[in-house]
Amino acid sequence: MKINDLLAENHRSMQRSEIRELLKLTAVPGMISLGGGLPDPQYFPVERIRVAFEEIMETDAVAALQYGTTEGDNVLREELVRRYQALGFRIKLENLVIVSGSQQALDLLGKVFINKCDTILCESPSYLGAIGAFLSYGGELIDIPMDSDGISLEELTSSYEALKQSGRIPKFLYLIPDYQNPSGIHMSLSRRQQILAYAYENDILVVEDSPYREFNFEGERLPSLYEMRGGKDIIHLGTFSKTFMPGLRIGWIIASEEIIDRFVIAKQNTDLCTSPLTQKIAALFLQKGWFDDYLEIVKREYKVKRDEMIKALHEFMPEEVTWFEPNGGLFFFINFPERMNATELLKKAIEKKVAFVPGSAFFPFGKGYNHARINFSYSSIENNRIAVQRLASLIREEMASI
Amino acid sequence: MKINDLLAENHRSMQRSEIRELLKLTAVPGMISLGGGLPDPQYFPVERIRVAFEEIMETDAVAALQYGTTEGDNVLREELVRRYQALGFRIKLENLVIVSGSQQALDLLGKVFINKCDTILCESPSYLGAIGAFLSYGGELIDIPMDSDGISLEELTSSYEALKQSGRIPKFLYLIPDYQNPSGIHMSLSRRQQILAYAYENDILVVEDSPYREFNFEGERLPSLYEMRGGKDIIHLGTFSKTFMPGLRIGWIIASEEIIDRFVIAKQNTDLCTSPLTQKIAALFLQKGWFDDYLEIVKREYKVKRDEMIKALHEFMPEEVTWFEPNGGLFFFINFPERMNATELLKKAIEKKVAFVPGSAFFPFGKGYNHARINFSYSSIENNRIAVQRLASLIREEMASI
Repeated sequence: MKINDLLAENHRSMQRSEIRELLKLTAVPGMISLGGGLPDPQYFPVERIRVAFEEIMETDAVAALQYGTTEGDNVLREELVRRYQALGFRIKLENLVIVSGSQQALDLLGKVFINKCDTILCESPSYLGAIGAFLSYGGELIDIPMDSDGISLEELTSSYEALKQSGRIPKFLYLIPDYQNPSGIHMSLSRRQQILAYAYENDILVVEDSPYREFNFEGERLPSLYEMRGGKDIIHLGTFSKTFMPGLRIGWIIASEEIIDRFVIAKQNTDLCTSPLTQKIAALFLQKGWFDDYLEIVKREYKVKRDEMIKALHEFMPEEVTWFEPNGGLFFFINFPERMNATELLKKAIEKKVAFVPGSAFFPFGKGYNHARINFSYSSIENNRIAVQRLASLIREEMASI
Repeated sequence: MKINDLLAENHRSMQRSEIRELLKLTAVPGMISLGGGLPDPQYFPVERIRVAFEEIMETDAVAALQYGTTEGDNVLREELVRRYQALGFRIKLENLVIVSGSQQALDLLGKVFINKCDTILCESPSYLGAIGAFLSYGGELIDIPMDSDGISLEELTSSYEALKQSGRIPKFLYLIPDYQNPSGIHMSLSRRQQILAYAYENDILVVEDSPYREFNFEGERLPSLYEMRGGKDIIHLGTFSKTFMPGLRIGWIIASEEIIDRFVIAKQNTDLCTSPLTQKIAALFLQKGWFDDYLEIVKREYKVKRDEMIKALHEFMPEEVTWFEPNGGLFFFINFPERMNATELLKKAIEKKVAFVPGSAFFPFGKGYNHARINFSYSSIENNRIAVQRLASLIREEMASI
């Protein structure tokens, strides 16, 4: 039997990514990988996790180990709703559904909205997991250039108008306004206003993916797109994978009741429910204020790591290499000289025991070959410094040879 | 904005199921629901779960709370592979991927194989979660009648030939050979041989969904389709949701490396990974032999529950009501007189504080209106008996009035 002949069209083009295969090679002793977007596990509140687990086993073991509802654990939903209400979101329980990590939210967006050949607007670059999820439903990504204030209104306008003229109205506009992955760019207030006004005028559904919002190291807190529009025609995605622990596999979607209802129907066919056990751990952390305690610690520590990485970049990188210095989030986006190819560089970097994600992973059409995303949250300050040093020395070698 | 206009075609037709909405009404005091397919939580090994959790926090906390690989926790995979090898499966690590409950396996089947309007062959009736998952990718289900030996070879042959003549080669044949949900039918050895021979001759990919296999209360253990074909062109699905605890959200797929590779790529875009925490709990239970201890207990208890429900059915049901008495699994499939409609009956049953799943939920085209699936694993023996009594008395009332 030729399995290849049986594959769904949308799936056939999906390949094991070359970059992912390269990053698999990083599981060797001495390697310092700046490739992932992982939290630093040294701060995981293991003792409190133990206490929370014991409390759940004492009071609620059966519900934790049995099937749960598709919508999610009600205590967790209530805690999240309360938290968002305090931030200015006008939402109630029916506006929030729990998902199995925010990657599932991206998959469900595809399931609910994307027909084969539908167009989706996104930032250029954008999150590789979103690109993968939308492509898996046959969506076509139209990536819109950004400047230091965020996605460009002019570029958005011209892309949207061109699509409209060819009769291809995009399904939605996918944005990561806060400390964008991978660019690190924080969308300015005036840009938020402009983009929302344009979306409103043109009846464009906006998806606001916001994993890094809580990691604002400095500058005033800008309102989320969801708050600014009072939730109208906005889908907001949140997750505990960066601010808490990815092993729990918990994210959530906030939207109108009508849209949440569609996500619940889609999730029912996808995985029935998210683990009630991990949801109850998260709920208890919110109830006890332990999540905020933890967040305060990691936010402070990640800020120090970012500052130290800026120092290392200045100290070691050749002049021709530049980068964006983010006010929050988990990443630096590095620009190599145009003659360099970051995927080729990664192969050599792995030999030198340092890894990163080449920029092309973040563009739907393989642009960005001379960029790299490096993460500063996962490794220690010392290892981040060594990694930057190794990378800089490799870049100097490369620059000398090409 | 009209959200309805934005929906994907495959998703637009998905509605909140009437039956699911009715079953939501069963969360009231005094209700006895035979509707779900839930394990009895009184046997959940909570003390050992606590011990396992403590051990994980002591020795492996960081890996349990961090991102895991898409393929799944290697200890859990190794334990499962060893278990299947002992049963006669010729597999290695690369033949098994962990999924977030076997509903995710059904969703991934859709993602990997189903184009809009592809045909899928299944038993009639079949598992409602599989029907929902395949429909959500635009698949068209062709349900093949069963007899007491399983899916009918004659009916399969005539359906397949008819499809082939119209140029619509089915993507796969979806079967639940062991104590089928909802019918309870256990496919006989000779039928297994016949169906596999037919599938082999015609190059038909077979999906063997096997959640109830371990619940064989009597009779000899029949080989699985996967064993019988040495794994060739068979996809085998397993889960801990029935034999262990659904709250862990753990299932798995066994297939050729080539097929597993496709599932891994698809899962990557779907939820990145299944919770390492819940996987490590399950792995430890397998390693320590605690899973087998637990399985022995529930298998014994569920057999008693089945026996007691047979008694109650004989004692209370009117003569015109018949049922299949299964040798394993978790369900009875009840046949009402043809003039009765089980969905209508459910509305009245809920008032009488008893619930079940109407048969039409298990047929892709709303057949089976005069059937009901009742579960015997979840409620206590006493409550099962009361539920059957309530249901029988309602049926007598209905039969007298129509």
